[in-house]
Amino acid sequence: MQSFLPPDRLLLGPGPSPVPARVLAALARPTIGHLDPRFIAMMDEVKELLRLAFRTGHALTLPVSAPGSAGMETAFVNLVEPGDTVIVCRNGVFGGRMRENVVRIGANAVMVDDPFGQPVDPDKVQAALRANPGAKALAFVHAETSTGVASDAATLCRLAREHGALSIVDAVTSLGGSPLEVDGWGIDAVYSGSQKCLSAPPGLSPVSFSEAAVAAIKARRTPVQSWFLDLTLVMGYWQGEGARAYHHTAPINMLYALHEALLALREEGLEAAWARHRAHHLRLRDGLEALGLSLPVAPAVRLPQLNAVAVPAGVDEAAVRRTLLDRHGIEIGAGLGELAGKIWRIGLMGHGSTPENVDRVVAAFGEVLARG
Amino acid sequence: MQSFLPPDRLLLGPGPSPVPARVLAALARPTIGHLDPRFIAMMDEVKELLRLAFRTGHALTLPVSAPGSAGMETAFVNLVEPGDTVIVCRNGVFGGRMRENVVRIGANAVMVDDPFGQPVDPDKVQAALRANPGAKALAFVHAETSTGVASDAATLCRLAREHGALSIVDAVTSLGGSPLEVDGWGIDAVYSGSQKCLSAPPGLSPVSFSEAAVAAIKARRTPVQSWFLDLTLVMGYWQGEGARAYHHTAPINMLYALHEALLALREEGLEAAWARHRAHHLRLRDGLEALGLSLPVAPAVRLPQLNAVAVPAGVDEAAVRRTLLDRHGIEIGAGLGELAGKIWRIGLMGHGSTPENVDRVVAAFGEVLARG
Repeated sequence: MQSFLPPDRLLLGPGPSPVPARVLAALARPTIGHLDPRFIAMMDEVKELLRLAFRTGHALTLPVSAPGSAGMETAFVNLVEPGDTVIVCRNGVFGGRMRENVVRIGANAVMVDDPFGQPVDPDKVQAALRANPGAKALAFVHAETSTGVASDAATLCRLAREHGALSIVDAVTSLGGSPLEVDGWGIDAVYSGSQKCLSAPPGLSPVSFSEAAVAAIKARRTPVQSWFLDLTLVMGYWQGEGARAYHHTAPINMLYALHEALLALREEGLEAAWARHRAHHLRLRDGLEALGLSLPVAPAVRLPQLNAVAVPAGVDEAAVRRTLLDRHGIEIGAGLGELAGKIWRIGLMGHGSTPENVDRVVAAFGEVLARG
Repeated sequence: MQSFLPPDRLLLGPGPSPVPARVLAALARPTIGHLDPRFIAMMDEVKELLRLAFRTGHALTLPVSAPGSAGMETAFVNLVEPGDTVIVCRNGVFGGRMRENVVRIGANAVMVDDPFGQPVDPDKVQAALRANPGAKALAFVHAETSTGVASDAATLCRLAREHGALSIVDAVTSLGGSPLEVDGWGIDAVYSGSQKCLSAPPGLSPVSFSEAAVAAIKARRTPVQSWFLDLTLVMGYWQGEGARAYHHTAPINMLYALHEALLALREEGLEAAWARHRAHHLRLRDGLEALGLSLPVAPAVRLPQLNAVAVPAGVDEAAVRRTLLDRHGIEIGAGLGELAGKIWRIGLMGHGSTPENVDRVVAAFGEVLARG
């Protein structure tokens, strides 16, 4: 065994996305202590930068010390108690994962199903909220990474609010890549990942909770089932005046990287980043359509950062991905769940969303498909 | 806000420990995909290197994608079900945290208390096991980071085995720094951290589970309450032949770093690393005693990697730490829980355990205490 030297890869899958050199450089700075006053000051900056990216003033905005799946679990285990009812929208793999979280709490998951590849249907959600008065929360995926579909988060959050339910929103793939307005849409709990449109390495999950969500946590009748993810304890480290209470050892270097990635996003500007993702999505669409490939998601709900591409009849889906990886050094994603074998997923996320990358993947597709 | 440039620090607290340049360099290598065949091959090497460090042949040996606290929770939520009884030894802060884990599962924690600063008393453990036939597990901390005390893990695991209980062992601070024999002592579930004697950055928790532990997981009557930490799902990604099932996005760069840190440990040799920690502990003891300071832990159970030092009467504990940090750039730890204000904790962990570091911290202590 020797030191691991990763191969050259262009990451155009569903994440991780390419991490820019400045973020890798930040990652490699010397480790200091998690209670060091200088580190605590940097944590405050990370919170402030996350508020800018989420477009929120929520005090409880911080990165969970683990990947996006743990951010999802943080939202559910803190807000939902045994016996609660949660309306869970499922139009892709990650809605199904939300259901798992609800069930494992001992809560009741009322499913609102839409076909994979379609957005969440607000009419069905409204019906479910009406049929389940007193539901604690409405949970849905804003940007379904498994299908490339955006749902109408503003409308869904409004419906939740009108029925007295908290909104729990998966923004793993949307944060930094397409419009996300945590305060503007009234999102109560949102979680994301570091490795998508923020272009930091995987391993952290930014989250943000509204005052209503914090009130729900404070009003819990039962302890949070996870000690590690218990926000009432995590807050003692990430918030508070003066000395911070030790809860767990923060992933110091990963937080350096997230800080740098968020600085880069602030320098570009959030709206400029959204526009860039949109422009390169259109360039990709044009290139793929010129090759005779089609994008199965309806144009109005396509995610610019995660592009589902239909696998043409007779084409070996996995073989194409393998050739792209082995011969062109390009990673793209496979379909998940019921879309396995039916779609490819091309991510143009964060630092990876450039015209050069679009042209490179389109050219590679052209070559691979021409060879058959 | 600008890029964060950490100050120069010598990390001689309870962790994180100083991360060597080769590990930081590995950390900063370009991110690749978590399903990339080359990355999967590296994961296999990480598992093999962890088996060497843990001295185990356990197939289920891997790093959890989050800090040591999540490793602890992984052990408890996978092995313990609601209604089970767990004997929990508490002779420091981390035994108390184990209790929190048991209680939040809805299981019954039978506490075996020993004073902070003392090892776990095997006689009390035996009595507790006898008084609680059918206890699912015995849980204890091998190396109590909060007090600097080693407990007799071999004896405690034997007692557990004799009573048909699984052993759950916190080896956060022992792994790589002092003798730990997972197979030799018959440990069923063990967890550690990347940021102590392995000298990788914080954020990963190596764990290992025996066949008996795996059988207990497979025989569960209830689902694991945490989706993120459910080993039956995590195994699908870290084990299995050929294709790995996506569970969560692994913290790619952190795993590069852990791989490199484990390679460094293998190059030095595990027993050589233990001897090094022991030698520099003795050097530190001699230096501190020459200053008139005393180590309150009995010599036979002192941890070489985590040295509790009694705060002399009339000395402002926090002021000394602050001066060490501000004037000398040296971080040491405070006492936790009932030892707050009574001890300092000097870590000589992993890459930080060198004669130069011992001499530097002793000299700094001498200067700070002389100034009063």
